[in-house]
Amino acid sequence: MTTQSGHNAELEEGLSFAPRFDAAGLVTCVATDAQSGDVLMVAHMNDEALRRTIETGDAWYYSRSRKKLWRKGETSGHVQRVVEMRTDCDQDAVWIRVTQAGAACHTGRHSCFYRVVKGENGDAKLIFADADRAFDPGKVYK
Amino acid sequence: MTTQSGHNAELEEGLSFAPRFDAAGLVTCVATDAQSGDVLMVAHMNDEALRRTIETGDAWYYSRSRKKLWRKGETSGHVQRVVEMRTDCDQDAVWIRVTQAGAACHTGRHSCFYRVVKGENGDAKLIFADADRAFDPGKVYK
Repeated sequence: MTTQSGHNAELEEGLSFAPRFDAAGLVTCVATDAQSGDVLMVAHMNDEALRRTIETGDAWYYSRSRKKLWRKGETSGHVQRVVEMRTDCDQDAVWIRVTQAGAACHTGRHSCFYRVVKGENGDAKLIFADADRAFDPGKVYK
Repeated sequence: MTTQSGHNAELEEGLSFAPRFDAAGLVTCVATDAQSGDVLMVAHMNDEALRRTIETGDAWYYSRSRKKLWRKGETSGHVQRVVEMRTDCDQDAVWIRVTQAGAACHTGRHSCFYRVVKGENGDAKLIFADADRAFDPGKVYK
């Protein structure tokens, strides 16, 4: 069922969860801190990661660089408990609100988004913000 | 400069904005409501969209389906004024906190994430939440 504008009504208005995986079999996942609302990280899930996340309530992802499924925190202990999962209009992304143990970023920061992008004379530079480390990555990842 | 674990120190700890575009020349962009913290949408930016967003303070995206650059709200009037832009540790995603005019979703909802994913007996279904329409898409997109 396609609407006038080419949108798929079932996908957008239906109650079936029908994730639209990309060519690599992935959807984008945004994880936010359930308390502060801060974006913690942007990562990817394949079908299996989605299934395990929904079943267990722990966030599972698919690592494109390591080409493997991983449970967030399996090495560091910094697991994410999922408070709520949502999907977007065209079902190619999910948003999870999580309770983050420790810190989300492998650099030791609470969020991966610890640098602000600032425009300056037609150029852009980065400024650190919320960049304190919650843990020492050298000690956590051996 | 690569750290022990294969991470790139300049990319993660430097002050140069060096977005890592994917094979299609895109980075992922998460837009959240600067007031509520809600995730409004997940979309993509190419180099030009990033540049224009930083220069003008309006959110510009690259549409993968329409294969064109677009200023959010150019048809609907529902522009996004950027309060802050951040990038993540490996610089393949940006997070913008925006003041959203009208509503972000083309379906008329404030956010594209108007359905909750609920696990049920090993399956998953969707439940509408925050699904009231702020505008009638049939009237806005003619």
